Amino acid sequence: MVFVLKPGAAQQKIQQFVLKIESRGFKTFISTGTEHTVVCLIGNTSTIDMDSIVQTNDIVEYGKRVTEPYKAVNRTVHPEDTVVNAGGVSIGNGMFQVISGPCSVESEEQIVMVAKSVKASGATLLRGGAFKPRTSPYAFMGLGEEGLRLLLTAKRETGLPVVTEVMNQTQLPLFEEIDVIQVGTRNMQNFDLLREVGRCNKPVLLKRGLANTLEELMMSAEYIMSEGNSQVILCERGIRTFETSMRNTLDISAVPLLKQKTHLPVIVDPSHAAGLQVLVAPLARAAVAVGADGLMIETHNDPAQALCDGAQSLNLLQFETLMKDLKRRIAFEGKLIGAV
Amino acid sequence: MVFVLKPGAAQQKIQQFVLKIESRGFKTFISTGTEHTVVCLIGNTSTIDMDSIVQTNDIVEYGKRVTEPYKAVNRTVHPEDTVVNAGGVSIGNGMFQVISGPCSVESEEQIVMVAKSVKASGATLLRGGAFKPRTSPYAFMGLGEEGLRLLLTAKRETGLPVVTEVMNQTQLPLFEEIDVIQVGTRNMQNFDLLREVGRCNKPVLLKRGLANTLEELMMSAEYIMSEGNSQVILCERGIRTFETSMRNTLDISAVPLLKQKTHLPVIVDPSHAAGLQVLVAPLARAAVAVGADGLMIETHNDPAQALCDGAQSLNLLQFETLMKDLKRRIAFEGKLIGAV
Amino acid sequence: MVFVLKPGAAQQKIQQFVLKIESRGFKTFISTGTEHTVVCLIGNTSTIDMDSIVQTNDIVEYGKRVTEPYKAVNRTVHPEDTVVNAGGVSIGNGMFQVISGPCSVESEEQIVMVAKSVKASGATLLRGGAFKPRTSPYAFMGLGEEGLRLLLTAKRETGLPVVTEVMNQTQLPLFEEIDVIQVGTRNMQNFDLLREVGRCNKPVLLKRGLANTLEELMMSAEYIMSEGNSQVILCERGIRTFETSMRNTLDISAVPLLKQKTHLPVIVDPSHAAGLQVLVAPLARAAVAVGADGLMIETHNDPAQALCDGAQSLNLLQFETLMKDLKRRIAFEGKLIGAV
Amino acid sequence: MVFVLKPGAAQQKIQQFVLKIESRGFKTFISTGTEHTVVCLIGNTSTIDMDSIVQTNDIVEYGKRVTEPYKAVNRTVHPEDTVVNAGGVSIGNGMFQVISGPCSVESEEQIVMVAKSVKASGATLLRGGAFKPRTSPYAFMGLGEEGLRLLLTAKRETGLPVVTEVMNQTQLPLFEEIDVIQVGTRNMQNFDLLREVGRCNKPVLLKRGLANTLEELMMSAEYIMSEGNSQVILCERGIRTFETSMRNTLDISAVPLLKQKTHLPVIVDPSHAAGLQVLVAPLARAAVAVGADGLMIETHNDPAQALCDGAQSLNLLQFETLMKDLKRRIAFEGKLIGAV
Repeated sequence: MVFVLKPGAAQQKIQQFVLKIESRGFKTFISTGTEHTVVCLIGNTSTIDMDSIVQTNDIVEYGKRVTEPYKAVNRTVHPEDTVVNAGGVSIGNGMFQVISGPCSVESEEQIVMVAKSVKASGATLLRGGAFKPRTSPYAFMGLGEEGLRLLLTAKRETGLPVVTEVMNQTQLPLFEEIDVIQVGTRNMQNFDLLREVGRCNKPVLLKRGLANTLEELMMSAEYIMSEGNSQVILCERGIRTFETSMRNTLDISAVPLLKQKTHLPVIVDPSHAAGLQVLVAPLARAAVAVGADGLMIETHNDPAQALCDGAQSLNLLQFETLMKDLKRRIAFEGKLIGAV
Repeated sequence: MVFVLKPGAAQQKIQQFVLKIESRGFKTFISTGTEHTVVCLIGNTSTIDMDSIVQTNDIVEYGKRVTEPYKAVNRTVHPEDTVVNAGGVSIGNGMFQVISGPCSVESEEQIVMVAKSVKASGATLLRGGAFKPRTSPYAFMGLGEEGLRLLLTAKRETGLPVVTEVMNQTQLPLFEEIDVIQVGTRNMQNFDLLREVGRCNKPVLLKRGLANTLEELMMSAEYIMSEGNSQVILCERGIRTFETSMRNTLDISAVPLLKQKTHLPVIVDPSHAAGLQVLVAPLARAAVAVGADGLMIETHNDPAQALCDGAQSLNLLQFETLMKDLKRRIAFEGKLIGAV
Repeated sequence: MVFVLKPGAAQQKIQQFVLKIESRGFKTFISTGTEHTVVCLIGNTSTIDMDSIVQTNDIVEYGKRVTEPYKAVNRTVHPEDTVVNAGGVSIGNGMFQVISGPCSVESEEQIVMVAKSVKASGATLLRGGAFKPRTSPYAFMGLGEEGLRLLLTAKRETGLPVVTEVMNQTQLPLFEEIDVIQVGTRNMQNFDLLREVGRCNKPVLLKRGLANTLEELMMSAEYIMSEGNSQVILCERGIRTFETSMRNTLDISAVPLLKQKTHLPVIVDPSHAAGLQVLVAPLARAAVAVGADGLMIETHNDPAQALCDGAQSLNLLQFETLMKDLKRRIAFEGKLIGAV
Repeated sequence: MVFVLKPGAAQQKIQQFVLKIESRGFKTFISTGTEHTVVCLIGNTSTIDMDSIVQTNDIVEYGKRVTEPYKAVNRTVHPEDTVVNAGGVSIGNGMFQVISGPCSVESEEQIVMVAKSVKASGATLLRGGAFKPRTSPYAFMGLGEEGLRLLLTAKRETGLPVVTEVMNQTQLPLFEEIDVIQVGTRNMQNFDLLREVGRCNKPVLLKRGLANTLEELMMSAEYIMSEGNSQVILCERGIRTFETSMRNTLDISAVPLLKQKTHLPVIVDPSHAAGLQVLVAPLARAAVAVGADGLMIETHNDPAQALCDGAQSLNLLQFETLMKDLKRRIAFEGKLIGAV
């Protein structure tokens, strides 16, 4: 249940109202918008007389029952688009960003070179894996802490904010200077990790699990927000289906559906979606047209020699060519790219 | 195995070459392009010495092994885009068409009114179900033969070519004046029906099955082409996955993948894909951007009262609004809509 | 809505009651059990006052709303197990049957030899494909009409009733002497074919589609029953999932779920389910234990040379060994195999 | 690549052989069977001349290339069934165990009462969740550390070894007295957790992820074994498919397939598989018949009041009835239940 307060309600009156609600055994979540403050009740509200609360609290404009299990991420609770500030660039509400870089950080030379190149082509954030989740215990696992250090070097050299994946909560202290923490596909329902990144004061890029529904994705975002961190970016990256000609099936419909249900920005990863380099450009175009707020694209200086996921990476020239096309398309949609 | 002949090879020499091949126990499929004629061998070619055939037949430019199980639909065999002439409008190779109309033909008044309206908005073909496959034996099955008659009335009144679904081969004699025969999702692997429409001299719109791979879709197109009908349009309309918030999951990647593997035009049906009216416009935009050759969109004069599939139909005004947007996008892609 | 009539209600009174119901615009389906006759109303029953009908018709014991979309196949309507007489052997209600034979009929010698062998091992019905649905138009399609003739020869030589697949309704006149008509996986929603086999006076073996829900399977059985043929056997044969180590995933839970929802017998095809010969025996054992009413197992005289599906076929000795084991298990479940 | 050593090869010679291999840059994994010791090479073995190694090392009986990406879990490397000692009861190679208990530990009274009852009925291990992964951050999360304490109380009262789930590696120190550590479905690819439980000297029950292939499951077991812990029990618990009438689809074929590919014991969880209490008994019967090494069944003193997953739990009487039936079936398969 949600109570939308009147514009200009005094802070003290809001606190009294919240205390009264909580004294009845409910947890609350407060969303402060540009005009309205919304107080969201969490718990079994079936016995509450909503109308009498509206009538007896003069700061309340109206009440509304929210039947979805997600509260904080629900657009009903927060009708305006959330804009996430990712190290100085904004994502959401008309601001479109392109995150690019290699699957794995391999060396200082490599990451700095790729960072400079993708920046010159128009990327606005840098990605690169330091801790890599791999199906096989015998595969390359990333450079770890050293990889984080190299990412920060590339950030200093280019000014690009960096996005990289955390694999478990004990690693979080190492992420202090990282701009955006990525929670990967296989960790979308690692609930303890979600709670911990919810306690960080930093944007979180949450990737959809291979076989998770959109409602489950929103519930995982709810975990993060319920700990107080509302800087969440959702990422559609392909789901597992019966189709075998591609690695995964990009669920492009997820973008408009998520944007209808939630206020959080939604980006698309066309590289992991199909796992095929030749499909990256058409899927990126589709993502812009369908209403996504950004893209995450793997680019590598030498895809044939990449230590992981080479088959899906663009080379530097392919990324440059794609960005020229995407800039026209982002403008066609009336959106802006880069810092404002 | 495929032999690409030299430009200008004499018809008589081609025939001799084909006879020689067939005398060794192979079926052949001949594809006549604007420059090259391609002779495709069907059968187990593992014992053939390809090089010696190239060297001993002076009309042959080169040979190539085709490992995919589809031959006639393979882009290797026919590198240029196939353009299908659908009752006077062209689909493929830069020509984009929008098929619209109601799920079911309900009455003369309804179909003529919808046809006039979608034509005014910019649709270039009319759809409408006369024979309706329904999960329940107790649901509305369409007007049948009378439905076909009413579609032809709407065609006369508007000039729009018509597309409608055949449910079994005994109905085909009734489709003589229909412009495009649709083979529906549930019949994608009704192989006897595929053969029969392969013997019709008429474009076929082949919808992907709910759980069929892209290779199976191409093999079903191969059934049609192997009977001599190369006027096939492929249609992606959503596949069945674990996701429950939408009726099906639009496999947008299918479009560029199919266009890479085959020369046939590929269209998208955003109405059936999600089964939600609110997703039709964003998915249609994504389809244009990803490279589709057309769209099939359900439009109804009164979706709330539709005898089937109302939840996914646009009303006439929504379709008009969408078409204004789509025309800008089709132009942005450098494509044309309508007859040329 | 269903009305359960009192035991011993007079036939004339039943007819009057049905006429009264039908005059209000409902179709009816009448199920005559050993004790009770049940009258099932088909149509929108939301406006009906059920209690007043019970009170004003003295032959009615009680009424019940059936919310499932399937009526005739619903166990509520027909609480006892249906027993299907398949050419002299009974399937259902404690009678367990094993259908075996090759994927395709290849020659008289082959089918007679396999038939004699599987009979000696304990099979109680013979299977063999005459019309084969194949993904590729260039694959072996079966011997067609000649295949049916050879099956009947094998039936005469062994006494085994025969099961074979129909691919389209124009073939049905050829099936006059066939004991059980199989509707295959790809035709589960070929609704026109379902209607036509519903008009045959012969058992129908209905296989679940690759990606069809159990409710859709029951609705397809409803098509057959709604035309008057209640001799329907359901067959679980594996569904399409993301798992790639097997051809399909056997949905073993389908058996108890179907038997709870419907009164029809349910059998399992472990050969097509996994597509791997080595899994046939363990899956057959699981099917017996889970409560299936029968099995359909592919057996071939020479699997390595089979014209189709050799990889999943047992050879004659493997089938003999398996049957020895299965007979003990069928007895353990308190069921009988063979004619009674 | 695997080298099978001659029976009775001297320990010192084995060490020399292993050192020689490792000096060429390979990791090794040594499996000591009852007769043969097997040395498994991990790394790119394509450049190795296997025959010359066999000929030049007299303790080597023969070499074999293993193409599967899993080594330590591969049955080729370790042909005999692994038997896991779970707190005094053996699982695998003819020893069948039944793990039962509530979804969550709710109170001392509850867990002790359930433990006594399931033990009396024949269960041989106790399960109960202390840390519960829940889709919603607002749902009951389990009693945590207190839950572990209560489980150990129930263990002292009944003698049943206990199985409970770990949610992240920081919790592992709390699991010292727990007999079997469960890695849950959502953590099957939490690779850092897998490594950590691989360093515990304790059996691990590894549940298959909702949308993970069998190969991925075996690779996750490989993570655990590659850290030196070979006490791994695999658990099939249903996968996510398009079917909506059940929560998940039990992949019964996984059992014989896993047992063919790997030497690890495989158990089935029929409670989570379908999520329906009425299906637990038939699926448990199927699991015994298909060759599983054990069952994990949720039993609750009062399912209607359970704090989670009540819909799938048996009550104490239902479990007692089921166990009577299962004991007959386990004996029928020639297997034993309980400690030996």
